[in-house]
Amino acid sequence: MDYQNFFTSALDRLQAERRYRVFAEIERLAGRYPQALWHSPEGPRPITVWCSNDYLGMGQNRDVTRAMVETAWRLGTGAGGTRNISGNSHPIVELEAELADLHSKEAALVFTSGYVSNQTGISTLAKLIPNCLILSDALNHNSMIEGVRQSGCDKAVFRHNDLEHLEELLQAAGDRPKLIVFESVYSMDGDISPIHAICDLAERYGAMTYIDEVHAVGMYGPRGGGIAEREGAMHRIDVIEGTMAKAFGVMGGYLTGTKAVMDAIRSFAPGFIFSTALPPAVAAAAMASIRHLKASSSERQQQQRQAARTKAVLSSVGLPVIDTPTHIVPVMVGDAEACKAASDRLLEKHGIYIQPINYPTVPRGTERLRITPGPSHTNAHIDALAAALVEVWTALGLPLESKVQAAE
Amino acid sequence: MDYQNFFTSALDRLQAERRYRVFAEIERLAGRYPQALWHSPEGPRPITVWCSNDYLGMGQNRDVTRAMVETAWRLGTGAGGTRNISGNSHPIVELEAELADLHSKEAALVFTSGYVSNQTGISTLAKLIPNCLILSDALNHNSMIEGVRQSGCDKAVFRHNDLEHLEELLQAAGDRPKLIVFESVYSMDGDISPIHAICDLAERYGAMTYIDEVHAVGMYGPRGGGIAEREGAMHRIDVIEGTMAKAFGVMGGYLTGTKAVMDAIRSFAPGFIFSTALPPAVAAAAMASIRHLKASSSERQQQQRQAARTKAVLSSVGLPVIDTPTHIVPVMVGDAEACKAASDRLLEKHGIYIQPINYPTVPRGTERLRITPGPSHTNAHIDALAAALVEVWTALGLPLESKVQAAE
Repeated sequence: MDYQNFFTSALDRLQAERRYRVFAEIERLAGRYPQALWHSPEGPRPITVWCSNDYLGMGQNRDVTRAMVETAWRLGTGAGGTRNISGNSHPIVELEAELADLHSKEAALVFTSGYVSNQTGISTLAKLIPNCLILSDALNHNSMIEGVRQSGCDKAVFRHNDLEHLEELLQAAGDRPKLIVFESVYSMDGDISPIHAICDLAERYGAMTYIDEVHAVGMYGPRGGGIAEREGAMHRIDVIEGTMAKAFGVMGGYLTGTKAVMDAIRSFAPGFIFSTALPPAVAAAAMASIRHLKASSSERQQQQRQAARTKAVLSSVGLPVIDTPTHIVPVMVGDAEACKAASDRLLEKHGIYIQPINYPTVPRGTERLRITPGPSHTNAHIDALAAALVEVWTALGLPLESKVQAAE
Repeated sequence: MDYQNFFTSALDRLQAERRYRVFAEIERLAGRYPQALWHSPEGPRPITVWCSNDYLGMGQNRDVTRAMVETAWRLGTGAGGTRNISGNSHPIVELEAELADLHSKEAALVFTSGYVSNQTGISTLAKLIPNCLILSDALNHNSMIEGVRQSGCDKAVFRHNDLEHLEELLQAAGDRPKLIVFESVYSMDGDISPIHAICDLAERYGAMTYIDEVHAVGMYGPRGGGIAEREGAMHRIDVIEGTMAKAFGVMGGYLTGTKAVMDAIRSFAPGFIFSTALPPAVAAAAMASIRHLKASSSERQQQQRQAARTKAVLSSVGLPVIDTPTHIVPVMVGDAEACKAASDRLLEKHGIYIQPINYPTVPRGTERLRITPGPSHTNAHIDALAAALVEVWTALGLPLESKVQAAE
């Protein structure tokens, strides 16, 4: 049996469909974000990163780094076990209290990643509710889809952010238990869900609610509690999921909710029970970052300013920017090969790193560059980005709107 | 609909079955392992940890900590994205080369945890093999079982370490593709699988092999490559899975194998693709630990010495120790409530922390204390442990063998 052939032929299919991914090897330089070194085939080269999910640059915040460093020296580099078997460190317990407070919930639970928190969280929740129907937004992240699948429960997928469709499905479900799972900010289109309206429907039809705020926590709301905090909706949602690996600049995922729900997930979720806990040093760094962003809004404000400026400048030169209500700035390409070529040319010729986003992350025909301006991107960075993109668009024969032709 | 009631009643069932778990909140003190602080209801108290999976105490190794600290200052606290989207740091690429070398494989792939590496690794592997039958050891870890389940493939469970049963199942399967998944060291009984004999069967019947070495890497083999290295069997196994969160003292899981297999998992495994990468500081610390243990055998030798001594001393006072061929020392209790009571009394009265291991981690009736001696446990620690256990056994009316009565 030639097993290797199964794998090489699967890889050949990816190549043929132009879906084979090459990872750029980089070193982000703390204190100098968004600058990084790219380990190119010809050796290290300075680049500017425009696609990081360390949205606020908290990964280079000195208080956050100091918390990691001091805790590593004091308690060591690892947790040494699962939460049940010697891995329940004081810093991780403190972090959970901090997260519960961030979302004004009774309790929180930390996971090794946001992926795991969604996957094992949703599946465990839904399994504990007899005869549960899960209502899931069509654009939910893969980790939520896997959680729904693993639960083995019935599911009904509603069209993205479509309240009428959601209501139809809720009505059709009758009085069985129901769980609505959705996101606040959808990461690829940068759009926002109608949280209050979804909660209205949940209340009317007696459904539980579960929201993924991974692309919002730290960045929205007066204390960085996310879109639900900004809209005064946190208390209407049963379970809020978030991450410490994006705006908080560290790693790990979490859930918050009532004590009973958190305790049940803690007690029954295999992806929680059987995983080594986050290292105390990682937990301490995450806590320092959350505390910082609870008190400081300057990073959020500067991010919003630079995101707005990026959209305006790119749009003014005729680039096909989607005008999102968030910090996420998609520039549409619409073709996998052109998207990869644009990304390669940006990196090699301009020292600008923006990963191509192709199928299956986005639907075919909507391939794009996904740009994430942050507080450390200066106006000069934005102007250089615009000029580089115009050069690339021109070189590849991609369409620019008329204003740019007028400007040239 | 009273959703909270679903969760509180599930928790009540756990309480009624004596399966509700309480996590001890601790701080392991770097430089003073196995000493730690226990945050007891009455405040912090010094304790000795006897149940850590930081088996060699590498979490307090100064070179490992220094690698974490220096990398955090240089590159920041987080990866900032998935491997594909700006999270492919130079340290994680170097770590994968180090791991491939450790197991003499072409390539390696790092995950956020050993749990995820098994779950998404096994399911992705098996899905890529048309009509694959998975043959799985009956005592495989939950993460492997979940991987098998998620693959959606047919499975056949063979009795634990039972070569005849495995051969029967292989024979019955005919010439369809087959994947055998098993562990080297089973963590709760501390026993070892017959790797060469399983490989013989795999070759005879044309099966792929996948081994979980999480309780062996760092600790067995001349360079810490695990039991398969010690037995000269690494080249006979297709995929070797391991962890950086136990003997290497940091966090994260990994797979190693051929370039094609690793590239296919990299390209198709959702739990890899959609998760933020390990922080560069964590990757650098893991690499420092692996490099150290490739060159140094003193930690391994001291662990084996102290594990043997622990078994001998506990046995000499009549405690029901299982004589394992590994560093894992189970002391049988056989009752959930007594096991919890023994653990509580050890902690509260003797300052000794050993988590009770109850159902469903082990079968009912085989509840136990699972002791993991390491190189930092001194002879005095072992003697104190033996005395404390005898006091607890006597106080709780648990049976001691006759030799202890003679000794008293």
